[in-house]
Amino acid sequence: MGIKFDLLQTDSGCKARAGMFHTEHGSVETPAFMPVGTIGTVKTLTSQELRECRVQIMLGNTYHLYLRPGLEVLQEFGGLHRFNQWSGPILTDSGGFQVYSLDELKKVTTEGVEFASHWDGSRHFFTPERVVDIQRIIGSDIMMVLDYLTGNPADYSISREAHLHTVEWAKRSRTHFLSTEPYYGFQQYQFGIVQGGIYKDLRAASIEEICNIEFDGYAIGGLAVGESLEERNEITDFCTDRLPTELPRYLMGVGKPQDILDSIELGVDMFDCVIPTRNARNGTVFTHQGKLMIRNAKHKLNSNPIEQGCDCFTCQNYSLGYLHHLFRVREMLGYRLATIHNIHFYQRLVKEAREAILEDRFQTFKKAFLTEYHG
Amino acid sequence: MGIKFDLLQTDSGCKARAGMFHTEHGSVETPAFMPVGTIGTVKTLTSQELRECRVQIMLGNTYHLYLRPGLEVLQEFGGLHRFNQWSGPILTDSGGFQVYSLDELKKVTTEGVEFASHWDGSRHFFTPERVVDIQRIIGSDIMMVLDYLTGNPADYSISREAHLHTVEWAKRSRTHFLSTEPYYGFQQYQFGIVQGGIYKDLRAASIEEICNIEFDGYAIGGLAVGESLEERNEITDFCTDRLPTELPRYLMGVGKPQDILDSIELGVDMFDCVIPTRNARNGTVFTHQGKLMIRNAKHKLNSNPIEQGCDCFTCQNYSLGYLHHLFRVREMLGYRLATIHNIHFYQRLVKEAREAILEDRFQTFKKAFLTEYHG
Repeated sequence: MGIKFDLLQTDSGCKARAGMFHTEHGSVETPAFMPVGTIGTVKTLTSQELRECRVQIMLGNTYHLYLRPGLEVLQEFGGLHRFNQWSGPILTDSGGFQVYSLDELKKVTTEGVEFASHWDGSRHFFTPERVVDIQRIIGSDIMMVLDYLTGNPADYSISREAHLHTVEWAKRSRTHFLSTEPYYGFQQYQFGIVQGGIYKDLRAASIEEICNIEFDGYAIGGLAVGESLEERNEITDFCTDRLPTELPRYLMGVGKPQDILDSIELGVDMFDCVIPTRNARNGTVFTHQGKLMIRNAKHKLNSNPIEQGCDCFTCQNYSLGYLHHLFRVREMLGYRLATIHNIHFYQRLVKEAREAILEDRFQTFKKAFLTEYHG
Repeated sequence: MGIKFDLLQTDSGCKARAGMFHTEHGSVETPAFMPVGTIGTVKTLTSQELRECRVQIMLGNTYHLYLRPGLEVLQEFGGLHRFNQWSGPILTDSGGFQVYSLDELKKVTTEGVEFASHWDGSRHFFTPERVVDIQRIIGSDIMMVLDYLTGNPADYSISREAHLHTVEWAKRSRTHFLSTEPYYGFQQYQFGIVQGGIYKDLRAASIEEICNIEFDGYAIGGLAVGESLEERNEITDFCTDRLPTELPRYLMGVGKPQDILDSIELGVDMFDCVIPTRNARNGTVFTHQGKLMIRNAKHKLNSNPIEQGCDCFTCQNYSLGYLHHLFRVREMLGYRLATIHNIHFYQRLVKEAREAILEDRFQTFKKAFLTEYHG
C-alpha cells in the first residue's frame, strides 16, 4: 500500500544512494531533481519538452493551483495530469511555504492558516485536512503535508513551537489522508515533513514523531531558507542518519548544483528548486565550468552552443550568440531555450550522480565535478 | 538568372493563381503566407515549430535586424539562416515601413531617410543602395527595395510625389543590386514595389515604370494602411490586371483571413501580416467559425481543443480550458501555443486555397469558407 522504493545501491564511501520509486504514472530514478511547475506548467515549456529534457517527475505548487485554475477546473478536467498533459509523476507541495512567504496578511492558528490571494486579495483558509483534500483534487502522485513554518533564522523557542505544531498537523494530515480516497483511480502517496530548524534535539524529536506516523516518504523542511551552508549540511547529515533507509528522502528547495551534490552525498534522494528555471529566464545558464551569463557582451559573436557536448535541444540547435541576441531583444524564445538547457543540465547532473553511485564512485565524481565547476 | 516561378493554374472563374517559386533554400507553393519574424524569430517559436506549422517561407524585418543583432553579428554568423537556424527561404522587407512608422524624428530626402533607433536613439541613414547592402549581409533569399512612403490616406499630390521618388529609388536599388554579389554563396532575388496610393493613374504609371526596371517579382505597397476594404480590393484588382503574369505578386501587410481570400481571388500570390502572431499573443485565435477569445470565461471548463479537427500541435495536445488558464496566469506557454495554432491556421488557409485553385473551384471554396467564418 505504501510507495515502493527500491534502494539499489549505497556508495561505500559516503551516504549517497541510488534507487527508484514507483507511481502509477511511472517510475522515478533517484537521486531525482523535480523542476518546479508552479501553476501547472514549468514556465515556458510544454510537457513534451520536459520529457525531452529527461525529466521524470515534476512539482506543482498547491497554493498556486488552488487559486488558479482552481479546484472546480482541476476536478472537471480529472486532475492536473489531464489538464497540463504531463503524464509522468507529479509531486505537490502543501502550499505552506507560499502562504508563509506572502506579504499579504496571514493569520496562523493551531487550526490552520488564513491568507489572502496574491491575485485578488480574496481570503482563504488552509488546514492540514483541507490541504489533503486539495491535493486529492489536484491528483498529484505524491502529496506533502501542511507544515508549520517560522521565519528564518528562528530561535529555539520558535523552532520548538513550529516543530510541535508540525507534528500535530502531520497526524491530522495522515488521519485525513487515510480516511479519504483518490478521485481519479490511481494511488496517491503522502510524505511527512521534518522540522526543527537548526537545533538537533528538535530535529531528532521531529524525526521520531513524524516517522512514527508512518508516511510514504520523508522531507527535510525548513532548510534552504537563509541558514549557512555548514548548518544546512550538518542538519541534513543529522536527519539522514535518523530517517528510515527504506523510504525516499526529499530535501525541499535545494538548490545549486554543488548543494545538490553535497546533499546526495549525505543521503538525500529527491530535490526541487526554482534555480534552474528562474535563472534561465534571467539569462543565467549552467555549464560544467559554472554559470554563464547569456547577456554578457562577450558572447555576441559566439557561434558555439552554450556548452560543447551538451545534447539538449538548445545546444544541438542554437548558438550562444543567437541566445545573446534573443535575450538582448527580450524575445520569449530566449527564455524557453535557456530553460530547456538548465533543466537538461540538472537532469544530467542527477543522472551522472546516480551512475557514479551505482558504480560506487560518487565522491570521485563529485570531486571531479567541483574541480571543473566554479559556481 | 531571375527567380523561377511556375504558374501552375489560374482559376477559370477569377484571377486566383496556384504556383510555385524556387530559391536555393527551397521551393514555395503559392498562394503563400509568410509569418513575420521581426527580429530573426517568429515570436515565441523555434524554427522547428515553424516547419511543423507547414511554413514554407518566413519574413524578416530589415530595420529590426539592422539594429539588433546588427550587421557585424549577421556577417560573422554567415547570414540570418545560420543565425536563427531557419533553413527555408527568407524574404526581408526594406525597413522603409518601420522607419516611416517611427515616432522618433526622421528626415526624408531624395537621397534617403534618416531615423533614430527605437532602442537607443542612435541615428542612422538608409538609402536605396544601403538597404541592398544590408539585405546582402542579412542574406535573405528575396529582398525588397526601399520605397518612399506617405502617410495614409494621402492626397493626390503627395501620392504622386511618393510614386516618383519610389521609381527613382527602385532604379537605384536595382542598379546597386545588379552590381553587387551575394555574400554567402546562394542566389538572392529582388522584388520591386508598386506605389501610387488609391489613384489608378498613379498605380498604372508606377507599374509601368517599376516593371520596366525588371525585378524578380512585384509587391503592391501602400495598401493595408487605412484605406477602405473596397478601395484596397479595387486597387489590388487594378494592379494585378497590369502586373506580369509570369512573376510572383506580393500584397504587403495583408491581412485577415477574409482579406487574404479576397486578394487571392484578385491574383495575389504572396502575403505577410502580423495578425496571426500578434493576435495569438493577445489571446485571439482563429477557427473556421471565426475568431475566438481565449480569455473569455466561458472557455474555463472546455476540454476540447481550440478547433476540432485541427492537426496543429496545440490542438492535438492541449485543451481550450488549459489555454484559458495559461492566459489567465500569463504563462508564456500560452502565447506559444496560441501562436502555433494561428500560424498553422493561416498555412492551412493558403494551402486549402491553393488546392481549390488547382481543382478550379476557388470561388466555391471561398464562399464556403466565408459562410462558416464570421470575422
